[in-house]
Amino acid sequence: LEALRLWAVVEYDGTDFAGFQVQARERTVQGEIEHALEAVTGHSTRIAGAGRTDSGVHASGQVISFSAPWRHGIPVLQRALNAVLAADVAIVEIGPARGTFHPRYSATSRTYRYTIWNQEWRSPLWRRTAWHVKTPLDMEHMAQASRYLIGTHDFATFGRPPEGREDAVRTVLGAGWSARDRVLTFEIEANAFLYRMVRSVVGTLVLVGQGRLPAVEVAEMLRARDRSQVRQVAPAVGLCLTKVSYPVSEGVMQ
Amino acid sequence: LEALRLWAVVEYDGTDFAGFQVQARERTVQGEIEHALEAVTGHSTRIAGAGRTDSGVHASGQVISFSAPWRHGIPVLQRALNAVLAADVAIVEIGPARGTFHPRYSATSRTYRYTIWNQEWRSPLWRRTAWHVKTPLDMEHMAQASRYLIGTHDFATFGRPPEGREDAVRTVLGAGWSARDRVLTFEIEANAFLYRMVRSVVGTLVLVGQGRLPAVEVAEMLRARDRSQVRQVAPAVGLCLTKVSYPVSEGVMQ
Repeated sequence: LEALRLWAVVEYDGTDFAGFQVQARERTVQGEIEHALEAVTGHSTRIAGAGRTDSGVHASGQVISFSAPWRHGIPVLQRALNAVLAADVAIVEIGPARGTFHPRYSATSRTYRYTIWNQEWRSPLWRRTAWHVKTPLDMEHMAQASRYLIGTHDFATFGRPPEGREDAVRTVLGAGWSARDRVLTFEIEANAFLYRMVRSVVGTLVLVGQGRLPAVEVAEMLRARDRSQVRQVAPAVGLCLTKVSYPVSEGVMQ
Repeated sequence: LEALRLWAVVEYDGTDFAGFQVQARERTVQGEIEHALEAVTGHSTRIAGAGRTDSGVHASGQVISFSAPWRHGIPVLQRALNAVLAADVAIVEIGPARGTFHPRYSATSRTYRYTIWNQEWRSPLWRRTAWHVKTPLDMEHMAQASRYLIGTHDFATFGRPPEGREDAVRTVLGAGWSARDRVLTFEIEANAFLYRMVRSVVGTLVLVGQGRLPAVEVAEMLRARDRSQVRQVAPAVGLCLTKVSYPVSEGVMQ
């Protein structure tokens, strides 16, 4: 039986996961999907993911790839996996991948959304998906500060490159805030991100919104290339990987 | 020590509650708030609510009232209650109530929101707050059908009047659908609702959206005043009491 090579888009509520990447004795997204694949196909299968989201971080558009022996058609595989997977993780799209496709190395950009519940009192309905910031935030100052991030910069101040690499130069294609009632949303797209980059950026922008850091200081921090300048890292609860983009030729639909 | 008379706006995630109204041996919103009031004030206190939401139904704008002995100011009471209450319920606004104020009888209208996740695959991130409807829905037909509900009608088809009453005449002030990606939202405001009315209406409108019931049939069903005509009641998970309105003179802010 020949193995099918597939890509899939995965959504998860990160609250009860110790992150994406498989770990001994911890419940992880990768571990749960690999268990489901083994239960459904009868074969031990390793998956690759586009981004190793931290413990508590959510995804509506994580992308994975894997090879598995399967003869019953791709829609049946999706249905079977979703039947086996727990309620907090699901395969939302699936399709055939080219032999050269890799969810991380083939990606041209990633988009993250960060959600803030900005009210004095905590919100029961947002408690699993938003950071509770009690003090009022000046959206105009936060918007101004986020514009300094757009473009190609050395982001060493805001995150760590992957193990064994030095290069912290990344290209931010877009970054901006929107608000709906007390819910503030930050969206950021970049060719790639450093470890903890979105959470360090959001923590810093919130200091700007609170008037504890002038907006222009964000440009200075960026120039410093010094991680000790970040005084506040936003918690995992508000972060969601919403999209990973690929060249059209890869045929990954979202 | 004289008792303060107060109103409060309450938000809750209904997932882990057996509804609003207090019951022996069940975890209810009313029971949790009354326990918190007793813990904070040292006095057993009964609260009244604007609407007795069912098990699993959420609220971002439930209104309650109560009288309690308290000498440390209203903001301190709110902070103390929120410190004692579990993460899935919170007091989001609080203020002094007139002696004649009653959250149910003083209300001029209520607004509910119903959320549907309309995709073939279940959503981990919407699983606690939306009904999963797999088949595509025709929003235009659903919008047309909901317009028949607007105005003053006998809604006996769509719900049961409170115990011991007969009158099922209610005035729907507004009803309509909006969509954002795969998330469909129904908002309905009425002077008052019958028991299970919103869920019966949504279940019926979804049949219209699926092409299993012509939109015009909703007008016929309404005229029939016969509860056996409702073939589908939407589940509690998608329902949220978002607002209760009062005459400006009551001073209830939301």
